[in-house]
Amino acid sequence: MQCGKQTTILEHPVYIRSCASVAGEKESEGPLGDYFDVAVKDPMFGMNNWEEAESRLQEMTIDKLMIKADVNAADIRYIFAGDLLGQLIATTYGLKKYDIPLFGLYGACSTMGEAVSLGALCVDSGAAERVIALASSHFASAEKQFRYPLEYGNQRPESSTWTATGCGAVLLDRKEGSMKVRGFTTGKIVDYGVKDSMNMGACMAPAAADLIAANLKDIGEKPDYYDMIITGDLGYVGQKILFDLLKERGYKISDRHMDCGIEIFAGSEEDTKAGGSGCGCSAITLCTLVEERIRSGKWNRVLFVPTGALQSTVSYNEGRSIPGIAHGIILERGIMHK
Amino acid sequence: MQCGKQTTILEHPVYIRSCASVAGEKESEGPLGDYFDVAVKDPMFGMNNWEEAESRLQEMTIDKLMIKADVNAADIRYIFAGDLLGQLIATTYGLKKYDIPLFGLYGACSTMGEAVSLGALCVDSGAAERVIALASSHFASAEKQFRYPLEYGNQRPESSTWTATGCGAVLLDRKEGSMKVRGFTTGKIVDYGVKDSMNMGACMAPAAADLIAANLKDIGEKPDYYDMIITGDLGYVGQKILFDLLKERGYKISDRHMDCGIEIFAGSEEDTKAGGSGCGCSAITLCTLVEERIRSGKWNRVLFVPTGALQSTVSYNEGRSIPGIAHGIILERGIMHK
Repeated sequence: MQCGKQTTILEHPVYIRSCASVAGEKESEGPLGDYFDVAVKDPMFGMNNWEEAESRLQEMTIDKLMIKADVNAADIRYIFAGDLLGQLIATTYGLKKYDIPLFGLYGACSTMGEAVSLGALCVDSGAAERVIALASSHFASAEKQFRYPLEYGNQRPESSTWTATGCGAVLLDRKEGSMKVRGFTTGKIVDYGVKDSMNMGACMAPAAADLIAANLKDIGEKPDYYDMIITGDLGYVGQKILFDLLKERGYKISDRHMDCGIEIFAGSEEDTKAGGSGCGCSAITLCTLVEERIRSGKWNRVLFVPTGALQSTVSYNEGRSIPGIAHGIILERGIMHK
Repeated sequence: MQCGKQTTILEHPVYIRSCASVAGEKESEGPLGDYFDVAVKDPMFGMNNWEEAESRLQEMTIDKLMIKADVNAADIRYIFAGDLLGQLIATTYGLKKYDIPLFGLYGACSTMGEAVSLGALCVDSGAAERVIALASSHFASAEKQFRYPLEYGNQRPESSTWTATGCGAVLLDRKEGSMKVRGFTTGKIVDYGVKDSMNMGACMAPAAADLIAANLKDIGEKPDYYDMIITGDLGYVGQKILFDLLKERGYKISDRHMDCGIEIFAGSEEDTKAGGSGCGCSAITLCTLVEERIRSGKWNRVLFVPTGALQSTVSYNEGRSIPGIAHGIILERGIMHK
């Protein structure tokens, strides 16, 4: 059902029946460490290069998800998935073996929001009983893709974020699950002209503010409609900008805002500076902390808003700005049959 | 409605109400030249670099589509779009100004199939009245991305294809239109281990064969159910492999097969070798030749199968194979109210 300009409310209940998350060593030493299904010490994940490592990360996550949900590949109709690498090669090689029809998505670090939106719509419409939505990132493959070779040992400004090594996957299903996808708000490209790829929070905060305001306007509610409004990876710098931008629009969310990028590395800011990032960051936070808080009844309804910075090394070197995009998901407490 | 393992038949009629295509000079000198809405002589499209040129190409196409369909940006609920460049930068900067919620897609040269599939599902489900599906490619931005700088003047083997400079966009609508999207068959990643990026036809043909066979199996029909089976950009080399692979599965389609990559540059093979490619190639052929044949009643039902080769320069340089993917759309003759 269309609700306002950007929001779709699903006709039928679509549940997140199962979640799986695999993370790297640094992530597992952070506050979410106890939640991950698998934590892997070896940053190469036993493979030969960073891209293969990220593919292996995806594979481990899907394998874990299928075990947890007691399904096999033949039970899954579609996968909606993406990563940060050019031409989605982590996804291509990571998902190849499953022989499941694939919709490849690119929304930068907002990809998990895009994947859950389209996956839930697909289940809602009856085009599938069951689909997987997935997003991954890897610190080293992302640094190689977007910034400097690790061997270069470049200095990182305080505004920079640390790409999380992690993959989160959810099984969307008609049946039951700890979380219910109630609807989604789809983001526009928002460009405030920021050109600093070492300050992704500033690039993405305007898109996050735009999305949150659009969601509240579309559904005709105030921020307290949600127990928590959760952005993807704005970090400390982006969070401040988000609050300022929303204040201009008359919304105060600071008493109910959480940022996955802040949560994931809280306490280790010496290395990770402004926080975590990467599309794996919000994906693994969804599959751990967010799921636990909703399942336990601490939160009954949240707005989950992964945020992405749209750039490539080519566009950066050509001096283009870095626009942002955000995709919002309305999550509610689900049902668990026994 | 789920139909077999990979096919979805839409519940309601979803029409392609309007099509727009913008192409480059070489494309406009080929057999489809008369059909394009706009042909542009300047390969830079008046911009400063190849990526900006491709963004401008997308912009011109959307502008044209809106004029032809007599709609404006506020009438469009979502855009489903993608291109071949890393992190979809042609799409990011091309679609920024429209302020329309965006789902960014990557399916290599199969992207138009993916975009129409998801766009039509979205309209079918009632989540939108009207969406745009779009894909673009540009010869020079693609060569720069995947192969050699143009200035290098590299030699091209006979199996190589020529990335088409073009953008095709369709307006998907509940109302009416010359073509009806009846359903779609979603592709899997198919890897026959081919590693030659100068022979994309061989990389993609197995995925095309797999998709066509899956579609026919799912709907329980023989190839003559379709007036034409149209692949994206297999070219002459890939077409031969497709016929062989389908023959092994008991299907003969040579009397009703067309490949957009062959059509678009027919007669100019000295330059373009095995044919055209790029996600713009099938997109602009859909919006011209295919639309005209269906509107005129020459064809009543076709299977349109854009095909993609999943690789990046990183994966290529790491010696990985180039898997393929294909996304199929069942198109039927629509209705045009007067």
